[in-house]
Amino acid sequence: MKPFFQVQTVAQVHARLRAVSPLPNEQVDLLEAGGRTLAQDLIAPHDLPGFARACMDGYAVQAVDTFGVSESLPGYLTLVGEVAMGQAPAFGLGPGQCARIGTGGMLPQGADAVVMVEHTRALDQETVEVSRAAAPGNHLLGPRDDAQAGQVLLAAGQVLRPQDLGLLAALGQARVAVASRPRVGIISTGDEVLPVEACPGPGQVRDVNTYTLAQAVREAGGQPMVLGLVGDDEAALKATVADSLATNQVTLLSGGSSMGGRDLTAQVFLSQPGAELLVHGVAVAPGKPFIWVKAGQGHLLGLPGQVASCLVAFHLFAEPLLERLLGRAGEPFGRFGRQSARLSRNLPSAPGREEYVRVRLCAQNGTRLAEPLFGKATAWCACP
Amino acid sequence: MKPFFQVQTVAQVHARLRAVSPLPNEQVDLLEAGGRTLAQDLIAPHDLPGFARACMDGYAVQAVDTFGVSESLPGYLTLVGEVAMGQAPAFGLGPGQCARIGTGGMLPQGADAVVMVEHTRALDQETVEVSRAAAPGNHLLGPRDDAQAGQVLLAAGQVLRPQDLGLLAALGQARVAVASRPRVGIISTGDEVLPVEACPGPGQVRDVNTYTLAQAVREAGGQPMVLGLVGDDEAALKATVADSLATNQVTLLSGGSSMGGRDLTAQVFLSQPGAELLVHGVAVAPGKPFIWVKAGQGHLLGLPGQVASCLVAFHLFAEPLLERLLGRAGEPFGRFGRQSARLSRNLPSAPGREEYVRVRLCAQNGTRLAEPLFGKATAWCACP
Repeated sequence: MKPFFQVQTVAQVHARLRAVSPLPNEQVDLLEAGGRTLAQDLIAPHDLPGFARACMDGYAVQAVDTFGVSESLPGYLTLVGEVAMGQAPAFGLGPGQCARIGTGGMLPQGADAVVMVEHTRALDQETVEVSRAAAPGNHLLGPRDDAQAGQVLLAAGQVLRPQDLGLLAALGQARVAVASRPRVGIISTGDEVLPVEACPGPGQVRDVNTYTLAQAVREAGGQPMVLGLVGDDEAALKATVADSLATNQVTLLSGGSSMGGRDLTAQVFLSQPGAELLVHGVAVAPGKPFIWVKAGQGHLLGLPGQVASCLVAFHLFAEPLLERLLGRAGEPFGRFGRQSARLSRNLPSAPGREEYVRVRLCAQNGTRLAEPLFGKATAWCACP
Repeated sequence: MKPFFQVQTVAQVHARLRAVSPLPNEQVDLLEAGGRTLAQDLIAPHDLPGFARACMDGYAVQAVDTFGVSESLPGYLTLVGEVAMGQAPAFGLGPGQCARIGTGGMLPQGADAVVMVEHTRALDQETVEVSRAAAPGNHLLGPRDDAQAGQVLLAAGQVLRPQDLGLLAALGQARVAVASRPRVGIISTGDEVLPVEACPGPGQVRDVNTYTLAQAVREAGGQPMVLGLVGDDEAALKATVADSLATNQVTLLSGGSSMGGRDLTAQVFLSQPGAELLVHGVAVAPGKPFIWVKAGQGHLLGLPGQVASCLVAFHLFAEPLLERLLGRAGEPFGRFGRQSARLSRNLPSAPGREEYVRVRLCAQNGTRLAEPLFGKATAWCACP
């Protein structure tokens, strides 16, 4: 029982988290891949677009033929054809020639620029007046301008955004290898906690953590599996944790609010087959009672029962674990972005522990200020 | 045909968007409400937590009994009981008395503070030594500290986050009224565009917009309904748009890449029963060819075929429309947040139109810089 009360630093816990390996991948249809985590680097199998393409409606030209032309001194080119969309032009351009082309059309051989239709006038069936000079490369996209064969375009671990799906589509990846979503069992405990449908009497409150954690798990890329509310009862908790361990890669148990509750959580976790205690107590506020036990392939996490502390501990420890299982970096609060700001007032801080303080960002005379929210620890309204 | 070529400003289009009314609501289970849009203000039906609650493990006291005590000069209180979790204590506190209490426990009558267990020592069954003074209110949460009956806690239009679900749970809202998700038909067109599984020949590209738009719709709170790829063929387009209009509140048609394609899109939209042209062309780059036709209760939007322009036009016009249908504010790019930054170099800009330029944010000597990405218009890699 020795490691029981060896409180660790946040950095020590994160060093352990970085050692967690990703779950196996799975293949999904491209239309279902949004928000999922790319499992392998995306390497361009071929150049993109693969041919020179017009970026504007107008005329494909040899740029040199337009040098020096202007509104007052236009030039005249011979129209030799029109580029059909989706086809390689059957003709090439010689000096003094041009061809009608639409946005996205393939440039004919010999053309090296596009003149926008706004700067031209068709004089007859064969003659086009050009009133603006073009430089080589104007209004076109080169054969490798989107991507070059062999280039790494997206790195494994990328959460796929709309534009990433577009890139995968452009390269013909109708199915994509993505990280499997970790299944996360969610258990709430506490003798004073009632289901959401119940009407609390004096001293009682409704179960909040099941709902905050389920959605936080979803937003972190996991699949929440709600196991419900269990009283501070050792046998019932052991059975529910065992159930969760049988099917879920991660189990979150929040609560244990009675004074012996935290020890109860550790006892329940350590009674599971193959249980190994990794963390019991962290020098951090809130989140100090965090417990992490590995049992076989499953991770059992004990989170504070107090609702705001529970969510902070989730983002600080549980979300990085989910990210590691998904093959991502596992930075705490990584999904939120970072900003630096000046504290609007001094904050006392206890030596020897990290503190996470909720703040409201505001601006004053061009300086970004972080205004600490001094709600009580349980004030969920202090989580904006 | 008069309004056909009356190019509107972005502000004019947004004024029209603000006139769009929300779709009817629906009730969902609280566990399914994450990411949905709250349809009605959440008003606290009762005080929260409704009773004074300990925020720490320790002893409930009358603060006045601890005034002046310290490590070197501790005070002594008589232990009169222990508060059971989830129950109203059957006893009250008189002067000089204290009661054991766990985090979340209900304070007995007469108690007005909690002393943390770390600052106490149980001397015998009846006597507790206190070595730190408490002020009234220390380490407790008052009956209305979380919420006061009648207070508006969440406003209609709020996209529900984990902590919002927690708040709804605390107030017993097992089911929630949320905005219905708009169904959005997605059609890609263009003779040069092939399905993602195909191998493009010269002059051909794969369908990208179906995938970017489907995920962008999902992230904006809509339900994408993929109708697939249609050639630049008037009859086929009319039929597919009619299909979409029959079941979807919004239809997105991207492309029409041939030089006559944009007129074709307008023609196809205006051929639908009850069609009314709201916008045809906007003084903006990219996104100029944007078309908006209302046909009955359905909105038909024409977006540029070029993949980066298509996504910008989506965020600029289609996403605000979806937000309005969801009962939200409908700010363009509202979901992304705003930051001000200094341009890293001068950008020329055409008079009379708004320009949306993709930039990369970086910092230099403490100044936030926006570095314009001068990719070609089609470079999707320029959408980070």
